[in-house]
Amino acid sequence: MKLNCDLGESYGNWVTGMDDEVMPFVDMANIACGFHASDPDVMAKTIQSAVKHGVSIGAHPGYDDKKGFGRRSIPHTHDELKNIVAYQVGAMIGMCKLYGAKVEYIKPHGALYNDMMSNEAVYQAIVESIAQADFGVPLMILAKVDNEKYQAIADAAGVSLLFEAFADRAYTNEGTLSSRSLPGSVHHDPQLIINQVEQLVTNGTVTTIDGNELALKADTICVHGDNPESINTVQQLRKVIDR
Amino acid sequence: MKLNCDLGESYGNWVTGMDDEVMPFVDMANIACGFHASDPDVMAKTIQSAVKHGVSIGAHPGYDDKKGFGRRSIPHTHDELKNIVAYQVGAMIGMCKLYGAKVEYIKPHGALYNDMMSNEAVYQAIVESIAQADFGVPLMILAKVDNEKYQAIADAAGVSLLFEAFADRAYTNEGTLSSRSLPGSVHHDPQLIINQVEQLVTNGTVTTIDGNELALKADTICVHGDNPESINTVQQLRKVIDR
Amino acid sequence: MKLNCDLGESYGNWVTGMDDEVMPFVDMANIACGFHASDPDVMAKTIQSAVKHGVSIGAHPGYDDKKGFGRRSIPHTHDELKNIVAYQVGAMIGMCKLYGAKVEYIKPHGALYNDMMSNEAVYQAIVESIAQADFGVPLMILAKVDNEKYQAIADAAGVSLLFEAFADRAYTNEGTLSSRSLPGSVHHDPQLIINQVEQLVTNGTVTTIDGNELALKADTICVHGDNPESINTVQQLRKVIDR
Amino acid sequence: MKLNCDLGESYGNWVTGMDDEVMPFVDMANIACGFHASDPDVMAKTIQSAVKHGVSIGAHPGYDDKKGFGRRSIPHTHDELKNIVAYQVGAMIGMCKLYGAKVEYIKPHGALYNDMMSNEAVYQAIVESIAQADFGVPLMILAKVDNEKYQAIADAAGVSLLFEAFADRAYTNEGTLSSRSLPGSVHHDPQLIINQVEQLVTNGTVTTIDGNELALKADTICVHGDNPESINTVQQLRKVIDR
Repeated sequence: MKLNCDLGESYGNWVTGMDDEVMPFVDMANIACGFHASDPDVMAKTIQSAVKHGVSIGAHPGYDDKKGFGRRSIPHTHDELKNIVAYQVGAMIGMCKLYGAKVEYIKPHGALYNDMMSNEAVYQAIVESIAQADFGVPLMILAKVDNEKYQAIADAAGVSLLFEAFADRAYTNEGTLSSRSLPGSVHHDPQLIINQVEQLVTNGTVTTIDGNELALKADTICVHGDNPESINTVQQLRKVIDR
Repeated sequence: MKLNCDLGESYGNWVTGMDDEVMPFVDMANIACGFHASDPDVMAKTIQSAVKHGVSIGAHPGYDDKKGFGRRSIPHTHDELKNIVAYQVGAMIGMCKLYGAKVEYIKPHGALYNDMMSNEAVYQAIVESIAQADFGVPLMILAKVDNEKYQAIADAAGVSLLFEAFADRAYTNEGTLSSRSLPGSVHHDPQLIINQVEQLVTNGTVTTIDGNELALKADTICVHGDNPESINTVQQLRKVIDR
Repeated sequence: MKLNCDLGESYGNWVTGMDDEVMPFVDMANIACGFHASDPDVMAKTIQSAVKHGVSIGAHPGYDDKKGFGRRSIPHTHDELKNIVAYQVGAMIGMCKLYGAKVEYIKPHGALYNDMMSNEAVYQAIVESIAQADFGVPLMILAKVDNEKYQAIADAAGVSLLFEAFADRAYTNEGTLSSRSLPGSVHHDPQLIINQVEQLVTNGTVTTIDGNELALKADTICVHGDNPESINTVQQLRKVIDR
Repeated sequence: MKLNCDLGESYGNWVTGMDDEVMPFVDMANIACGFHASDPDVMAKTIQSAVKHGVSIGAHPGYDDKKGFGRRSIPHTHDELKNIVAYQVGAMIGMCKLYGAKVEYIKPHGALYNDMMSNEAVYQAIVESIAQADFGVPLMILAKVDNEKYQAIADAAGVSLLFEAFADRAYTNEGTLSSRSLPGSVHHDPQLIINQVEQLVTNGTVTTIDGNELALKADTICVHGDNPESINTVQQLRKVIDR
């Protein structure tokens, strides 16, 4: 089980995230590619930090929307989706080549991620982009109880998948993330987060918001490094994973 | 002798250049990478057109300045220059992979090109970016009478160079381009343009603005495809080259 | 009856629209404010041209989306909508003050316009922005057969309205614009366009796509100046209006 | 003597500055206008905070360069300078109208400010923009020992000036700011900052980096609110000013 974290989301003079503090404790860095956040210099700094700490680099493409931080769903055609993914993955490849690193996976960001998981056509376009460009790296998507349809599409295209679970989000009985707007959907108590990860690692299950236990196949767990408390939690999760 | 042309400089809904008309007559397409012009969709369209017409694709990185079309010199540090080049070349690689094409050379655009030719430190940064990222493609720079210093820097870094001459610009006795602000510096008469290319192809020389003949080693000639007249001129240059 | 036209939609080096050709024949110029198109220099040029030809200046705010030319609906909260309208109208006021002109009305652009007409909450936010900022100029919206609800909201806020009809769009029996995706929805034949305007001016009616005649109260008609043919049509509409 | 502070320099999801903490202690808020930083929503928030604390609002226009935070000098023609100032001041007027506030002065930001003080042509363009647009508010510039030339240009245009001194910057014997790159040019010791302000308030002088005492006519002092220490210093300066 690997810990993945969104990193390199600063922009120009604006700094966000405690990247230096969280990098040593994660396995996979989802690095923004300059569309929803970041710029070539932030990417350079983040890639070099990942290399230094032996962390895998993932291209983290998003909608071209710095104002909305990639969290607004912006209408795109099938081809436009393919193009924004290939452009951003390519840009990350270029930056990685400059600093002796490699893109090892692709994880869409924010609204693009959500659109991918809620709209099969968006997912199809992303898979098609990766396959057609022959990037040769897996796509990270949300682990759900039933991943069959998404797995079939990826298999047909010859794209491998990584499934991620969330450490700090409550799950519904259907195995999807409970909407952020509902109470109890985001775990703020570090112990809840740690428990959820321990259960995933040990039993391969999550306990849903209604108290049921669901089997969830996950390769990696998404964590956050935004503030001192989240850094602290990640350090504890690191221990849970490494035990 | 090859003809190269700046292409793919539209943006979103804004169209510039007669790309469809000029593409069939050139050998090398310098395709904008989304910083000074273009976007993933324009790049996709332009790459596909280049592939269709068997035209070599060059990444054409510029300063991140759509408002100024990359024609304003914007202060960058050494590392920032390396990063904007690697980012844009990488983005072009990503888009080329998507459409079964390859980046075959790199030619900086506008103010970045001018800064490269007038400021050795800028040139050094660009060369270093290409070498360090191991892009494995040549850099196109301006053919001058004395290219030794620039050649030596490229050699030391293991980067190969392509030299370009201009079809429609007058040369000084020193073998540099005569400043656009001086009368007679830009050839508007198609016959002058054709004569300059014929002389380059046949004798490997240009006649300077003061009437002297200078030897100029050039691998390629830069042409334009902005308007019907320029398309017409390119078609005639094509015949001169192919003769 | 006035003719209004979207103008000043160039950006930096990119030129769109035949502004110089159409300006002399219209009454109202909807001038882009730098979000979906334009920049301070294009605004300056367009304002000065409007002043020269005695054309009323309207602020033409859109979503902040140059790549999509303001034609993509981008999620905004109520307050965000108010803010983007006030910002852009203010920017246009600033530019008009610089060139001795005045903003005389406000017409939202593209997706913002469509969202305003299809989503009452968007309309409410726009009206509220204009009222609260006390801009003191009317808002231009689509003339429909039944404008009562939209009129009531504007009345309550103390904002006056201008209603516009379209010269080149077919109307449904319900008095809305027939969807562009349906055949016959956009008039390409200049005579159809002229007939529609003549009928509006003379009878205050439009003939729907199904052949019915509908009363439509309009203060102004939206025309286009994108290409030579449209310029020609506008010149003929000018004569129809001035007859 | 007033305290002025750059505020509202966040952008979208990115937060910079401790605006809430510093706003209660300053007299004048230089609020970014969306070019080098900020957006309509950040402006709305900052204006409302200024109104709440009775702080004067200044438009703080900069170069259109979020990546460089307005700190890179970008080539502009005379007219382009006039246009970017009028656009941004107008945008701030629009936002202020929405929240019942007024723009009370104009202070250029970063590289635009530096260019204004080092290049008379840039200053001339800014003054001309304010005069021609009849904004009716003063322009804030750097207090120097000899302000005569800058005062004469403003007088000729009918634009009034505000002169600002710096609390944390060392002055040369010529009465200019000592270059940041020289040791001792930026005061990090709060006591030095407080002493400099006390001397300015009491004697109307500064002690230069070489130990001389220079008379400096200043209407306002520029302070910073970036971190807890600077907030602490501003609170102490508030007491010095109010004594």
